[in-house]
Amino acid sequence: MFENKDNSHTSISNLGEFGLIDHLTKNFKIKQKSTVKGIGDDAAVISADSKKEIVVTTDLLLEGVHFDLSYVPLKHLGYKAVIVNLSDVYAMNAEPTQITVSIAVSNRFPVEALEILYAGVQTAAKIYNVDVVGGDTTSSTRGLLISITALGTVNKGEAIYRSGAKENDLLVVTGDLGGAYMGLQILEREKEVFKVNPNSKADLEPYAYLVERQLKPEARKDIPNLLKELGVKPTAMIDISDGLSSEILHICKNSKVGCNLYEDKIPLDPQVISACEEFNLDSTTIALSGGEDYELLFTISTEDFPKIKANPHLTVIGHITDEKEGIHLISRAGTKIPLIARGWNALKGDE
Amino acid sequence: MFENKDNSHTSISNLGEFGLIDHLTKNFKIKQKSTVKGIGDDAAVISADSKKEIVVTTDLLLEGVHFDLSYVPLKHLGYKAVIVNLSDVYAMNAEPTQITVSIAVSNRFPVEALEILYAGVQTAAKIYNVDVVGGDTTSSTRGLLISITALGTVNKGEAIYRSGAKENDLLVVTGDLGGAYMGLQILEREKEVFKVNPNSKADLEPYAYLVERQLKPEARKDIPNLLKELGVKPTAMIDISDGLSSEILHICKNSKVGCNLYEDKIPLDPQVISACEEFNLDSTTIALSGGEDYELLFTISTEDFPKIKANPHLTVIGHITDEKEGIHLISRAGTKIPLIARGWNALKGDE
Repeated sequence: MFENKDNSHTSISNLGEFGLIDHLTKNFKIKQKSTVKGIGDDAAVISADSKKEIVVTTDLLLEGVHFDLSYVPLKHLGYKAVIVNLSDVYAMNAEPTQITVSIAVSNRFPVEALEILYAGVQTAAKIYNVDVVGGDTTSSTRGLLISITALGTVNKGEAIYRSGAKENDLLVVTGDLGGAYMGLQILEREKEVFKVNPNSKADLEPYAYLVERQLKPEARKDIPNLLKELGVKPTAMIDISDGLSSEILHICKNSKVGCNLYEDKIPLDPQVISACEEFNLDSTTIALSGGEDYELLFTISTEDFPKIKANPHLTVIGHITDEKEGIHLISRAGTKIPLIARGWNALKGDE
Repeated sequence: MFENKDNSHTSISNLGEFGLIDHLTKNFKIKQKSTVKGIGDDAAVISADSKKEIVVTTDLLLEGVHFDLSYVPLKHLGYKAVIVNLSDVYAMNAEPTQITVSIAVSNRFPVEALEILYAGVQTAAKIYNVDVVGGDTTSSTRGLLISITALGTVNKGEAIYRSGAKENDLLVVTGDLGGAYMGLQILEREKEVFKVNPNSKADLEPYAYLVERQLKPEARKDIPNLLKELGVKPTAMIDISDGLSSEILHICKNSKVGCNLYEDKIPLDPQVISACEEFNLDSTTIALSGGEDYELLFTISTEDFPKIKANPHLTVIGHITDEKEGIHLISRAGTKIPLIARGWNALKGDE
């Protein structure tokens, strides 16, 4: 899982908690001018700007629940743990500025493994221009756990909530859906093959996009800026972490509206379609319930349609209706099917 | 561990992740006027004030590492998890304003158990006047984990760091030390007694203060205000979570100074002294290394001494020296003993 040519792994307890934090974060640079004090005190200190509002979001990732280290490289895991949180910040129409990173690790992880994990955190922090300003490091009785909190800023009054969708608004999604879930299927299959034949060489090339969507997702940092450039302010926005259907239900519930989603409009990558055929899965179901795509789902007023039309990043997939009309998928055959939440749910062991 | 008269426990998976968060936080009220949006969107939104700075701190608590549910009631655990974070906020001279609360639980915990845990969180939030604005809820493969992030505000430029101590400053501690650690010893002993004889009735009355210090600690919210009233601005401040010696070392390292700590000045409660005698432990060692007292340790200029003198909450325990003089405990016998970090360290399994 990590390279260590002389095989002399360092036990975490050699460094101790304080030594470990210092060691893992010593190369982290502060770049945000709002960061007054980063790691190294009881708390980080961040300057405030009364023209801005601050957004805060947090996510937990647990080994055995959210990731499987038999095929998730630690560097990718560190990267993804950051992305998952930043995606929530962008979904508020905000810019991420700082994160805290806490980890709990069992003593099966040497310091070198945590260095690789933190290299992934650092890479994401650099690319997305956020400062790592704090965290906690502790031992666990079993497995690895990462808890990240992200802070961001948005101009006062410009945060976009789940609750602003209005009847007749258009439902728009960025990118394409289902890739991360199919990437997971590919990796799970390769894991089983490897168990049977440890000499097998996986050819993941035909699935490169899917595997990347699963292992190294990106957050849509381009979208808040793109919308500003286009002069479009969404009426509601959410990120797609649990699956399209569950996010649509969130918007509808919070906005007290209904929705028609058109099956034939759901954007799918050709690799998703072919992998679904290979696995004998329905690609619509995967897009609706797969999750982990970290795309943004938002609603806009119909007046704004000409501004987003033909933009390759944005697809109109439905429209908002009166609450009484309910929430439906309109199938390719024209059938109206009630949409239910089947999003990936970390609390249900059977999914 | 919790009361449920009809024995009909609700499985967490019955509610699902979204249902669970809604259920657990439905009685939580928003009281801070800076909270624009609490739980229920991709992120919380908090208004900023350019006269203030924002502090952020985070802590992880794991079952089997930081707490033992065989004697820690879930309500106390929820309460303490909040306090641990608020203590860090006060140590910056800031007022806590918002927290996020994430939990990972195995399916051995019914919803009713989490309700009790959250009741503890809610009680602390109410007493300390903070809003619970977000969090994450997920399953774990084993045990219970709580990750809390606290936000607070401090007037611009008034945050107190670990790095400001100067030669000749006085070292001051609030309250008394060692109680939480001795409380833990009492509880661990009762657990062993109970294992041998499940019918034994523990008489914890003589140890009430110690047990309370361990199970239901408070953060020193009174101290930043008290110091303001007294007209004292500490030059450096830290909270005592790992033990007095490790916190002194943090201040000295960050401030590039030395320190003399006087053994006979260390404030000890009579219950700590008698419990130490009973357990044949050295009370100075316990105060130095016990940890979890959540008192504040700070340094003040000698000019400020008359202002704090005779205040029952504050004890001068030493003074800051030049870095070259090192960091020492001056024993009752007058011997100079180098101070080393023996603080409670969650990364070392053997402590």
